[in-house]
Amino acid sequence: MKENGSGDKNSGRGIPGPTNPMVTPLLTDLYQFTMAYAYWKARKHAERAVFDLYFRKNPFGGEYTIFAGLEECIRFISNYKLSEEDIEFIKSSLHVPCEDGFFEYLRGINCSDVEVYAIPEGSVVFPKVPLMRVEGPIAVVQLLETPFVNLINFASLVTTNAARHRFVAGKSKTLLEFGLRRAQGPDGGMGASKYCYIGGFDATSNVAAGRLFGIPLRGTHSHAFVSSFMTLDEIKDKSLRKKASKSTCKDFVSLVQTWLNKLQKSKSLRGVFAETNQSELSAFISYALAFPDNFLALVDTYDVIRSGIPNFCAVALALNELGYKAVGIRLDSGDLAYLSCQVRKIFCCIEKEFGLSGFGKTSITASNDLNEETLDALNKQGHEVDTYGIGTYLVTCYAQAALGIVFKLVEINKQPRIKLSEDVSKVSIPCKKKIYRLYGKEGYPLVDIMTGEDEPPPKVGERILCRHPFEESKRAYVVPQHVEELLRCYSAGTSGKAREPLPPLKDIRERCIKQIEKMRPDHMRRLNPTPYKVSVSGKLYDFIHFLWLNEAPVGELQ
Amino acid sequence: MKENGSGDKNSGRGIPGPTNPMVTPLLTDLYQFTMAYAYWKARKHAERAVFDLYFRKNPFGGEYTIFAGLEECIRFISNYKLSEEDIEFIKSSLHVPCEDGFFEYLRGINCSDVEVYAIPEGSVVFPKVPLMRVEGPIAVVQLLETPFVNLINFASLVTTNAARHRFVAGKSKTLLEFGLRRAQGPDGGMGASKYCYIGGFDATSNVAAGRLFGIPLRGTHSHAFVSSFMTLDEIKDKSLRKKASKSTCKDFVSLVQTWLNKLQKSKSLRGVFAETNQSELSAFISYALAFPDNFLALVDTYDVIRSGIPNFCAVALALNELGYKAVGIRLDSGDLAYLSCQVRKIFCCIEKEFGLSGFGKTSITASNDLNEETLDALNKQGHEVDTYGIGTYLVTCYAQAALGIVFKLVEINKQPRIKLSEDVSKVSIPCKKKIYRLYGKEGYPLVDIMTGEDEPPPKVGERILCRHPFEESKRAYVVPQHVEELLRCYSAGTSGKAREPLPPLKDIRERCIKQIEKMRPDHMRRLNPTPYKVSVSGKLYDFIHFLWLNEAPVGELQ
Repeated sequence: MKENGSGDKNSGRGIPGPTNPMVTPLLTDLYQFTMAYAYWKARKHAERAVFDLYFRKNPFGGEYTIFAGLEECIRFISNYKLSEEDIEFIKSSLHVPCEDGFFEYLRGINCSDVEVYAIPEGSVVFPKVPLMRVEGPIAVVQLLETPFVNLINFASLVTTNAARHRFVAGKSKTLLEFGLRRAQGPDGGMGASKYCYIGGFDATSNVAAGRLFGIPLRGTHSHAFVSSFMTLDEIKDKSLRKKASKSTCKDFVSLVQTWLNKLQKSKSLRGVFAETNQSELSAFISYALAFPDNFLALVDTYDVIRSGIPNFCAVALALNELGYKAVGIRLDSGDLAYLSCQVRKIFCCIEKEFGLSGFGKTSITASNDLNEETLDALNKQGHEVDTYGIGTYLVTCYAQAALGIVFKLVEINKQPRIKLSEDVSKVSIPCKKKIYRLYGKEGYPLVDIMTGEDEPPPKVGERILCRHPFEESKRAYVVPQHVEELLRCYSAGTSGKAREPLPPLKDIRERCIKQIEKMRPDHMRRLNPTPYKVSVSGKLYDFIHFLWLNEAPVGELQ
Repeated sequence: MKENGSGDKNSGRGIPGPTNPMVTPLLTDLYQFTMAYAYWKARKHAERAVFDLYFRKNPFGGEYTIFAGLEECIRFISNYKLSEEDIEFIKSSLHVPCEDGFFEYLRGINCSDVEVYAIPEGSVVFPKVPLMRVEGPIAVVQLLETPFVNLINFASLVTTNAARHRFVAGKSKTLLEFGLRRAQGPDGGMGASKYCYIGGFDATSNVAAGRLFGIPLRGTHSHAFVSSFMTLDEIKDKSLRKKASKSTCKDFVSLVQTWLNKLQKSKSLRGVFAETNQSELSAFISYALAFPDNFLALVDTYDVIRSGIPNFCAVALALNELGYKAVGIRLDSGDLAYLSCQVRKIFCCIEKEFGLSGFGKTSITASNDLNEETLDALNKQGHEVDTYGIGTYLVTCYAQAALGIVFKLVEINKQPRIKLSEDVSKVSIPCKKKIYRLYGKEGYPLVDIMTGEDEPPPKVGERILCRHPFEESKRAYVVPQHVEELLRCYSAGTSGKAREPLPPLKDIRERCIKQIEKMRPDHMRRLNPTPYKVSVSGKLYDFIHFLWLNEAPVGELQ
């Protein structure tokens, strides 16, 4: 299923543009254009450069990250074109009179000579390993730095956050992303919806994301809906057709009241239910009349146990009498562990007393400022929640709002380059590289290894030395049972290589879920996870340190 | 300068659409549409409702917030229209067969009957006070909830963050927003650029934001630019025309080398400068050849004091000889306080030794993971930085990634509504209200007071009782010297009222800066600021508590 890009300069052009129309060639830092001019002036702009895109530290105190945002990058470069207005604006922004030839050059840039190798979107990835390797004329690749980093940073961060929430919630729970209103701007919201789905969420409340990405949508009603009703007299049309029948219940309101009465007098529930809030009851009945097949009620506007639950149950029992099945309730405040257990008990009592098979399993959704910690605490306390609606902490990545993706020059004109730093963790790994994931006997990935491009690949069953890129004493022999090359070609440039297709969102989500399952559990746990090893070949290690000594000035103690 | 909206249903239609084309009526939570259907089914959709948009707690441990995002909301509702495709999608998303009349109703919604009263954008605002009061048919206003909250939340949060950074940096420093690559998605970046400018930043690196909003742009070169050069031989065209002259220096490279030699032999600098990195020197010369009038060099790729600074100074002195003035340097790592002081000393030495007037004041920019705390620490240590480039912590609001804006029903059909909660801070303040800011003798704002809509306004020189909305014992008499009504009309609906114009970005920025200056300093300080008082009138206080008792169920201890 690979498209062949060979020979056709416009091979990427069948790919649609970025999701957000604001992602244009101007969505970059000014210095990318000032540098482009300086390269051009120095007649250096076309020199072939290789940049690695990677991060240095896993987010959220964990030991893994999910790579996401690749498709948007490929869409971006496949449609890269500076308009005349763009060029006019750049001209006016460079502050100095630049030579016209430069703008002629900008006019011609279309990224058809840029090669992008990347790890497939939705993969589990680790620090220091290039997620993308971008090769092309240096001036052009630098123009791509800011948009690429922008498109990958939040995408990978929020996908990882979603995956972590899924991990704590467990496979059996339904996870809903409810964050649009608290997201960092409109497409903070759009991005969060898309990438939380990739990270393992089941649905979103965001209608635009539902339409654009085909993500399942979920949502019922808010507190305002409940408090906008005053009395039962407000309900004008009280009739409800029986399910799969032509007959109609003429007064659904009375039917609900009858059930509420029965509940209040019930033996097993005695003392639990008293007078309920009529504004709430009116709202529930109205919602059920509109959505008899999809009745899910927010029960905490006044008092969950004293008002919300009896009102819900009365409506649910009345619906049941007409052949409908209520979906469930949502709790949006209070002690969710305790309340969910209380509510489950009541549902089970009702199932028993009224012989209503399955009522005990009525769905309970919880949605009040949830995050990894609160999910974990709920698990420890014991709870009866089936579905979580998660917003703020998920979509803004509140626990850590940024991932530090960087984009570093590793080779120019086939000359390896290194970026030094007093902080060893900030030293870049030079050379155009290949990356392999080595798997052990139990099927788990053991280590990622980077090699120079021309080195022979690690072979199954053959012992290979894996070295820490910077710490001399950290090294290990590995005999891989399976070797996976991680970087694949997503933009072939003029190389004529076959190009990977961009998979549909569901496949990316599937990959993410499977990759996480494939990891050794101790790398994935919330507390004190084991770091996954990232290494370089012996040859690359030696070269890094040769180059390092070569570039670093010799200090002089004074 | 007010536009008159009276009588013209399309009065808002001269206003352009939202900046991000992804902000459409579908950018909302699904439950807004399910509620709309339930309202419509209950024939309640046109009931007149009033919602307050407000937040409960100032962000970043501070005692103030800057309100921003209003213009985008007004643009949004002024162009509100569901397309046929939108309606088809909603139909398919509601899961149940809804009556056709509902979709006919959706087709007709255009927000021309929605009134929006708001505090002007760029104002200093406080918890519990409505930033916006939105009045209209309940089904319509609910559809606006999610996009309004989304558009205000991040805008106000990041504006406040920028204002706080400005406060710590001080008025005399230049502040540059460099966050695009680390922002939460493309328009996380666009929004951050816009709102940081409002909050008091001077410029951005984001070219698209420069074009769209007219924000000044800044930027020079990166580490990759420096390391992409290898030797001086790479520089092919070595000539540089003298400034404001027809004569040309044929070998600028030699001129720089001559100066580097002089610096290495200089008496006052003896021992400071030794061999410098030639890759870096080559990059600096190339950049200067492209931008002789705008030479700002990143000096930390190899070693600031031993390589970056002598290389910069040599180029700057050569430029000076040709009539150009170098702009300065950028430090992106290391001990910024210490390095900036060292660099300043060197600049001053050179000014003295070579008689180069003004060279000591050459600009120093710092840009490594800066935030409020690091700026504060720099101030305490003493430093010589003139300009800060701030990214990650600023634009992602790393210290607190979300503001908790809410949107609560306060009145329907002229009936006040209250939302109760076991947590007092979550109880809403009912009624359609007016808001006044009362100023004291020294010209500082003393207190914000909310009153019922029909109460007479507080009068200058007349004593008025200001009560805490929920705590009985907290109250104070105030004799205002000046009374400012805060809510102004930005969308007149069918009321015929005059509508405030939407001011240009610069005016909003100006307002923000002036409003902050007008506040009593103890409210604004970073550590232990004094809370600003927010109050209600005696009459509103009594009514809140009457309604509260009326709605709350009486508990029963068991």
